[in-house]
Amino acid sequence: MPGNSFGTIFRITTWGESHGKAVGVVVDGCPAGLKISEEEIQVELDRRRPGQSKITTQRKEPDTARILSGVFEGKTLGTPISIMVENVDAISKSYEDIKDTYRPGHADFTYDAKYGFRDHRGGGRSSNRETVGRVAAGAIAKKILSREGIKTYGYVKQVGHVVADKINFREIEKNIVRCPDKKKAQEMIALIDQVRKEGDSIGGTVEIVSTGLPAGLGSPVFNKMDADLAAALMSLGGIRGFEAGLGFKVADMKGSESNDVMYKDKKGNLRFKTNNAGGMLGGITNGEDLVVRIAIKPTSSISKIQHTVDKKGKPKELKVKGRHDPCLCPRAVPIAEAMVNLVLVDHLLQSKLARI
Amino acid sequence: MPGNSFGTIFRITTWGESHGKAVGVVVDGCPAGLKISEEEIQVELDRRRPGQSKITTQRKEPDTARILSGVFEGKTLGTPISIMVENVDAISKSYEDIKDTYRPGHADFTYDAKYGFRDHRGGGRSSNRETVGRVAAGAIAKKILSREGIKTYGYVKQVGHVVADKINFREIEKNIVRCPDKKKAQEMIALIDQVRKEGDSIGGTVEIVSTGLPAGLGSPVFNKMDADLAAALMSLGGIRGFEAGLGFKVADMKGSESNDVMYKDKKGNLRFKTNNAGGMLGGITNGEDLVVRIAIKPTSSISKIQHTVDKKGKPKELKVKGRHDPCLCPRAVPIAEAMVNLVLVDHLLQSKLARI
Amino acid sequence: MPGNSFGTIFRITTWGESHGKAVGVVVDGCPAGLKISEEEIQVELDRRRPGQSKITTQRKEPDTARILSGVFEGKTLGTPISIMVENVDAISKSYEDIKDTYRPGHADFTYDAKYGFRDHRGGGRSSNRETVGRVAAGAIAKKILSREGIKTYGYVKQVGHVVADKINFREIEKNIVRCPDKKKAQEMIALIDQVRKEGDSIGGTVEIVSTGLPAGLGSPVFNKMDADLAAALMSLGGIRGFEAGLGFKVADMKGSESNDVMYKDKKGNLRFKTNNAGGMLGGITNGEDLVVRIAIKPTSSISKIQHTVDKKGKPKELKVKGRHDPCLCPRAVPIAEAMVNLVLVDHLLQSKLARI
Amino acid sequence: MPGNSFGTIFRITTWGESHGKAVGVVVDGCPAGLKISEEEIQVELDRRRPGQSKITTQRKEPDTARILSGVFEGKTLGTPISIMVENVDAISKSYEDIKDTYRPGHADFTYDAKYGFRDHRGGGRSSNRETVGRVAAGAIAKKILSREGIKTYGYVKQVGHVVADKINFREIEKNIVRCPDKKKAQEMIALIDQVRKEGDSIGGTVEIVSTGLPAGLGSPVFNKMDADLAAALMSLGGIRGFEAGLGFKVADMKGSESNDVMYKDKKGNLRFKTNNAGGMLGGITNGEDLVVRIAIKPTSSISKIQHTVDKKGKPKELKVKGRHDPCLCPRAVPIAEAMVNLVLVDHLLQSKLARI
Repeated sequence: MPGNSFGTIFRITTWGESHGKAVGVVVDGCPAGLKISEEEIQVELDRRRPGQSKITTQRKEPDTARILSGVFEGKTLGTPISIMVENVDAISKSYEDIKDTYRPGHADFTYDAKYGFRDHRGGGRSSNRETVGRVAAGAIAKKILSREGIKTYGYVKQVGHVVADKINFREIEKNIVRCPDKKKAQEMIALIDQVRKEGDSIGGTVEIVSTGLPAGLGSPVFNKMDADLAAALMSLGGIRGFEAGLGFKVADMKGSESNDVMYKDKKGNLRFKTNNAGGMLGGITNGEDLVVRIAIKPTSSISKIQHTVDKKGKPKELKVKGRHDPCLCPRAVPIAEAMVNLVLVDHLLQSKLARI
Repeated sequence: MPGNSFGTIFRITTWGESHGKAVGVVVDGCPAGLKISEEEIQVELDRRRPGQSKITTQRKEPDTARILSGVFEGKTLGTPISIMVENVDAISKSYEDIKDTYRPGHADFTYDAKYGFRDHRGGGRSSNRETVGRVAAGAIAKKILSREGIKTYGYVKQVGHVVADKINFREIEKNIVRCPDKKKAQEMIALIDQVRKEGDSIGGTVEIVSTGLPAGLGSPVFNKMDADLAAALMSLGGIRGFEAGLGFKVADMKGSESNDVMYKDKKGNLRFKTNNAGGMLGGITNGEDLVVRIAIKPTSSISKIQHTVDKKGKPKELKVKGRHDPCLCPRAVPIAEAMVNLVLVDHLLQSKLARI
Repeated sequence: MPGNSFGTIFRITTWGESHGKAVGVVVDGCPAGLKISEEEIQVELDRRRPGQSKITTQRKEPDTARILSGVFEGKTLGTPISIMVENVDAISKSYEDIKDTYRPGHADFTYDAKYGFRDHRGGGRSSNRETVGRVAAGAIAKKILSREGIKTYGYVKQVGHVVADKINFREIEKNIVRCPDKKKAQEMIALIDQVRKEGDSIGGTVEIVSTGLPAGLGSPVFNKMDADLAAALMSLGGIRGFEAGLGFKVADMKGSESNDVMYKDKKGNLRFKTNNAGGMLGGITNGEDLVVRIAIKPTSSISKIQHTVDKKGKPKELKVKGRHDPCLCPRAVPIAEAMVNLVLVDHLLQSKLARI
Repeated sequence: MPGNSFGTIFRITTWGESHGKAVGVVVDGCPAGLKISEEEIQVELDRRRPGQSKITTQRKEPDTARILSGVFEGKTLGTPISIMVENVDAISKSYEDIKDTYRPGHADFTYDAKYGFRDHRGGGRSSNRETVGRVAAGAIAKKILSREGIKTYGYVKQVGHVVADKINFREIEKNIVRCPDKKKAQEMIALIDQVRKEGDSIGGTVEIVSTGLPAGLGSPVFNKMDADLAAALMSLGGIRGFEAGLGFKVADMKGSESNDVMYKDKKGNLRFKTNNAGGMLGGITNGEDLVVRIAIKPTSSISKIQHTVDKKGKPKELKVKGRHDPCLCPRAVPIAEAMVNLVLVDHLLQSKLARI
């Protein structure tokens, strides 16, 4: 029942509220003998850290990861890996005057509806800060996958009306918006900067591609690879859509167009001439690149004046203070990668059990 | 690990291959004391049954549901409800000559990659026939939800380039394509009929709306209502995309546009002026209608000649015989409704546990 | 939440009431490629079948197993294996007059307390008949284990005051009480026959030994091998105690006596000179024989007159008709073996995931 | 698959090694709105703390609990409750010279067999120190149960040959051995002191009684209340047996003796004249006191010289240094209580879902 765990074999449980003492994760099911260090986890956390550029929130969190258990002499023990990050720059005061006000686009009202009360400071559990644990766990998953030659690339595909045309993986981390198209990256940054100055925010899409996958990962029915990826990515805050391969384009296609044709390549491998399916058939990887995409809504917290109500339904004018990302996409990239890697490692481990 | 179960509290396990002896489902976690009959289950199965109209496959399956356990004197016992449907019109012979051929768009290759061999007859476990169990279980979920005034409407929103404009729930079951827009329904039917004659198939979208939901259903993190719905619907065959509320449109919107504004209605309830979020905030229902959408690819089996390979990579020309739906959407409606209802009933039961 | 599934990787879900249409099991997570036949399952079902000897209930159930899915051309597909056994000799009438009476020692009262009503015929879901599904699933587990040289022997250790001294596995199936001590077997049979004639019943113990186990099976904390075995065996009806190795004898021992001393054997393997621990240390197998034991209460249904109450608390005199085992132990042997094998196969599969 | 979580609705995940940085627990599924403080958790941790009396280990751990998440303004939020206890007095040096030696009775060998290597310091994950998290979580469970009038009493029933005759709950915490029989407590203490001086250790039993339980808690099949309790208690270190009610005594009883007779009491409640079943029928509570019992082996670490081998099979003489309990029973009492309370609260929450 509890909804704070994810995965079956490689299973993570995240905990923590935005302005509580700390946030963290427990990873259960990581095989023994994997070399992993706090530094490797820190690299990923630094990619999602607030304050990393002018187009992200200016909250200053060092987000230093501490491994508290499960690793001994640099190697995993096979026991749960507990990782904790303390909340340092939590300015709770700025939330005091909106304690009873429902911020538009946020989960304030729905948490109250479910639990009867909530930690109002910075969104509490519904804050993006919860993803610290996911990214830390994802770093371990990434390490396991890299041993098998599997690599995951996330990038910003679209911000507002600006859409990346070229997908050059090497460009991604060279610009602050994490766009694989050098030229469009600058347009995206300009757009984000503009909405920020307007006190507004902007939506976008993030695409995630995994390479080096063997055919045969995924489960036939409820844990289809695409179903698990959808669950993983839709479980992030502010996601409104998920696509695999061609996505919604298939609605206006014919079978003779959308079916990917198979052939035998020079190495004797069975391959597909196109990748409309995004690397999955019947929920199981087919050996082509895995390609999925998510739609991310514009940040709900904006400094423009908005109309809303308080707990009792009294109308309120709200101008959200605090420090917020004008566009969620750039920082969503490492988080989305983490979620994809968590799903992949789970199915990679499961694949050891498929045949007698 | 096993991937044939779905749900946490109201948990279903489906079983069966397309051309095996039977297909079925075990429902575990249904509360005791619910009145339910085989007839109520049959109603839903009849809606998904093949051969129901000229635009569906002509396979003739009576799909008669038998409740084998868990119901006594017309009421659920609180014990597992086992429901079985025998496979009657399974013509396996037509598959004999494609035993070693990988049909384009199907899971033949990926099942072989995972398991080393497969039941090639009619797709085996990957067949849409597996959804018989889901629909039977969904009928029970529907019954529970109806007691709370919750009702789910699925309908075909788009077929190829034809998109429904009007959403009139009462029209849905009046036309064979299950479109809520009377006029567009006829265009959709004509389009499907045309591609069928061409030996081809066509894609589309299905939208599902649930009304009467209380605010507060859903879980904060990994089991957000939208994440669970995405997992539920992406676990069906041939789905390439999922959207909640405005879906991918949010990518080109500003926060000031996409945030739904709250107000107090005349009855004193807190409501939202718009429903861009599709009835969910932070993964928890907000009391507005739940609105989700899926993209369904064109049927992979077409009678046009296609190029592919066999197990050994030898090129093959394939003209799929058998009997197939030219468009998956009309029969996907009751299946998608069932999946949404299964998620809703799980969270409805979970909501009993939210507060001390 | 639902309590009708067991196992994590090799997961079974049983269903069915004693006097319903059928009982059965769905096995999820069995690897693909295992050769298995209905006959192999039938062998085990025949061992638990009622009416097999003069000291068991005379209910005549053929208990014919039908595999409905998951097996194709004699091999498992990796998909769920559904097995069904129809209830044939269910004489429900004999229960009509005790519909509202709480039979002593039975779950009648507690099911009513939990669910508000129950299927009163033959105990409904609480009947030993539910174990048909367990035994069928256990036959599959047994087949997997046998490939690894692992073999499980269950036997009756004690009936009333008669305790087996010699443990000769080859004797077990040679006598109807399934006792490994030829001489004591006759005494047990005589005792059971005597209590049967008195209209009474008698308790006993069953011991289960597994040989050929590698060291390293089991999980460190909550899924210790002994914890999982205890859960498995205590989940059967009428079990009042569980022991591993020396069991309760350790309460009056010193550490210097109970610790098993290690040595290196002639083949270079690390072994233990004694097996006080029953083959497990820290919840993980140590390579010695696994030895566990359960205490089974005397059958609750006896034909002697008993005092009880009905639903409204009105005193009743009860003489249970129907047909019952005077001692549960002989038929408990194959059931207990099945449960142990189910736990072992789960941990055997899990062991593939322990190291990177 | 991962074995570090326990419970279904009220679900705990423990983490930490004996000599790592910290140990802890994440509690998922605790309802919102429960008042709980660090002090209430500390009370239970102090009961299990080492160094609390002359008959326990002299390791000095303050075991100070910090709640890191899930509690806000003194009340649970419905989000995961993360509790951490830092390891302070971990003297790892004393383990350096036994790094490669397999201590008799410990899990050193089996962890190596499973994982290929281990944290040898103080038993690592297999240490009793892991139970800190269980006891902390148990304190929350206890608080929930107390609201319903349910109270759990654990006590030492037997140490070596000394068995408590009188069960007076009020005596339990008045003596350092936690025996409910004032006189026998002194004999037990004397016996423990004697074996300690001999450099040896002694076994015993702990009995746990829960009062105030309603009828109807528990699940029919695999999650019978007794099965869950057995799993919970057998998952502790050094447990060799579990009994409910009369336990192994039923092996030599007749049905006419062991069945508990029902009657209607003066308040109109249906009750049982005896409690041979230990408060459970068919795995569901019957409203009488829940009575279970565990057999605890003598501490494996003793200072007497023992023979064993190292990793390579080389014979070693071992005299375990470190600081150890001469009898595990007194400190096992709060741990066993915690486990029972965790099971009870899980089923208490589940009972909200039993009927429509």
